[in-house]
Amino acid sequence: MKTPIVIAVTGAAGQISYSLLFRIVSGELFGLEQPVILRLLEVTPALEKLHGVVMELNDCAYPLLQKVIQTDDPKIAFKDADYVFLVGAKPRKTGMKRKDLLESNAVIFAEQGKALNEVASRHVKVLVTGNPANTNTLITQSNAPDLSPRCFAGMTMLDHNRAISQLAEKCGVRSKDIKNMIIWGNHSETQYPDLHHATVKGQEAFSLVDDRWVVEDFIPTVQHRGGAIIEARGLSSAASAANAAIDQMRAWALGTEDNDWVSMAVFSDGSYGIEKGLFYSFPVRVSADGEGTIVNDLKIEEFSLERMQETEQELKEERLAVQHLL
Amino acid sequence: MKTPIVIAVTGAAGQISYSLLFRIVSGELFGLEQPVILRLLEVTPALEKLHGVVMELNDCAYPLLQKVIQTDDPKIAFKDADYVFLVGAKPRKTGMKRKDLLESNAVIFAEQGKALNEVASRHVKVLVTGNPANTNTLITQSNAPDLSPRCFAGMTMLDHNRAISQLAEKCGVRSKDIKNMIIWGNHSETQYPDLHHATVKGQEAFSLVDDRWVVEDFIPTVQHRGGAIIEARGLSSAASAANAAIDQMRAWALGTEDNDWVSMAVFSDGSYGIEKGLFYSFPVRVSADGEGTIVNDLKIEEFSLERMQETEQELKEERLAVQHLL
Repeated sequence: MKTPIVIAVTGAAGQISYSLLFRIVSGELFGLEQPVILRLLEVTPALEKLHGVVMELNDCAYPLLQKVIQTDDPKIAFKDADYVFLVGAKPRKTGMKRKDLLESNAVIFAEQGKALNEVASRHVKVLVTGNPANTNTLITQSNAPDLSPRCFAGMTMLDHNRAISQLAEKCGVRSKDIKNMIIWGNHSETQYPDLHHATVKGQEAFSLVDDRWVVEDFIPTVQHRGGAIIEARGLSSAASAANAAIDQMRAWALGTEDNDWVSMAVFSDGSYGIEKGLFYSFPVRVSADGEGTIVNDLKIEEFSLERMQETEQELKEERLAVQHLL
Repeated sequence: MKTPIVIAVTGAAGQISYSLLFRIVSGELFGLEQPVILRLLEVTPALEKLHGVVMELNDCAYPLLQKVIQTDDPKIAFKDADYVFLVGAKPRKTGMKRKDLLESNAVIFAEQGKALNEVASRHVKVLVTGNPANTNTLITQSNAPDLSPRCFAGMTMLDHNRAISQLAEKCGVRSKDIKNMIIWGNHSETQYPDLHHATVKGQEAFSLVDDRWVVEDFIPTVQHRGGAIIEARGLSSAASAANAAIDQMRAWALGTEDNDWVSMAVFSDGSYGIEKGLFYSFPVRVSADGEGTIVNDLKIEEFSLERMQETEQELKEERLAVQHLL
């Protein structure tokens, strides 16, 4: 039996985690031979609900689940954690300004960054799902100066998957026939889903769809998909978000496919002129031992560059709003 | 690429299905090489919500998901279905009598039985999760006279897993160290979780725990676990129920482990004196080609027999309440 890996999840009694936890311990993330220790964090008032979720986890009699810790203390939750899903975040309430949302979340993620810095594994991979994901990643990372910035990423895999799904449907192919999709920038409505490098069964995507569809249909559909789900389902995306978290963490831990990449909001190294130190979604290749590299040699059209800069601008503004916590 | 299998799910926009569907199409049920066609049934008012769920399924860009059908017509939902999860059922409302609950569900399952009889694969496996599960299975089966009664089973795998989990915790072992657990009878509070044949790392369970714990703790905890989850979580078991549905269908389709069995509510053949034709939870062994057989040579103590008959009696009473629909 392999040594158990330690996986921490925040917002563990929430909707996304309710879809995520059961899939992690069933073996979907690291396979059927890898035992898992779960360390679950919730705010104090949600601990009883979390206890109910843990009862259900136990009721699954999962062979891989070695131990579950429930806590409201980030330093306990992140102790020796190898993989961390920062799912919990304050939702936007009616009438709340974006700045207030940024601030109230920033306080949470600053605290969690400090705790990670103190107690997590030095090779931890921290995936931030809680919105605003990119800026929350920045806050977490900048409060964890002893960890490499490469230990942190924000989730844009849901957008990546949504973009693949839209193109697959348009072209009448299966999702696995699509390669080299890119989401640039912020996990928000300014994100830029870019088809210029995507292929469909090896053919250039742009040779199969017309510009008008891309501009008027594809890009806005992917950008506004979250809202469309809320409208249809009456609740925000949870199962598909959890699925993307598994996809992104799996790719980040075990590597991307040979001729493909994933989109991840990682610490910018200045590639494509994006300001260094912002957490910006780039195409990222990951080696089998979990080392990620920004794909930095793509030719960028003027059309794309404008959109890439627009979403960069939004990230700079978000950063300004939380400057005092960095 | 293998031929896709057709999986139908009812109550597809509900909570259990929200945990179930994403795990089915990620490959947890039939593995990473088996494409799947999903046929999803909901009541008309829930079709929009179902559409939202399907949007999320698409947003996962699952390589195995070939096609999704959404409908409120059982004859469309069950067309050529190989595997059917009957999840949807009317929940009990405050002040509702058990008889009224039985009746209102009976009408639904009678209609679904007729549709299965007409359009499903002749080798279909129909797993009933919607409560009261055993009697709903009986109604469904008796409305599908052209299908073998062996095509139908009610779910007691959740109880089976809960019992394993309780015993594992008590003995300080992992769930996979426990074999030969049994749930007898009805998926209700009269069920009898039986430790007399269970082993813990090869040792008889009864040699490791005392009688008092079994009677005063183990049996009532398993029987009333559903209520305890509702109390802690504020909602009924969904993820653990979905997990059990996958476990039971996988065992039923692909076989049980060599020295083990699962608990399933199947058509009684009179084993252990249980009335023929009732859907009663027995220990069942399944061959690799999906042929289930009741384990019928176990020695039964007086203590067990009384409890087995008590839960049988409840099933007879439930049957009486829906007699006109059989």
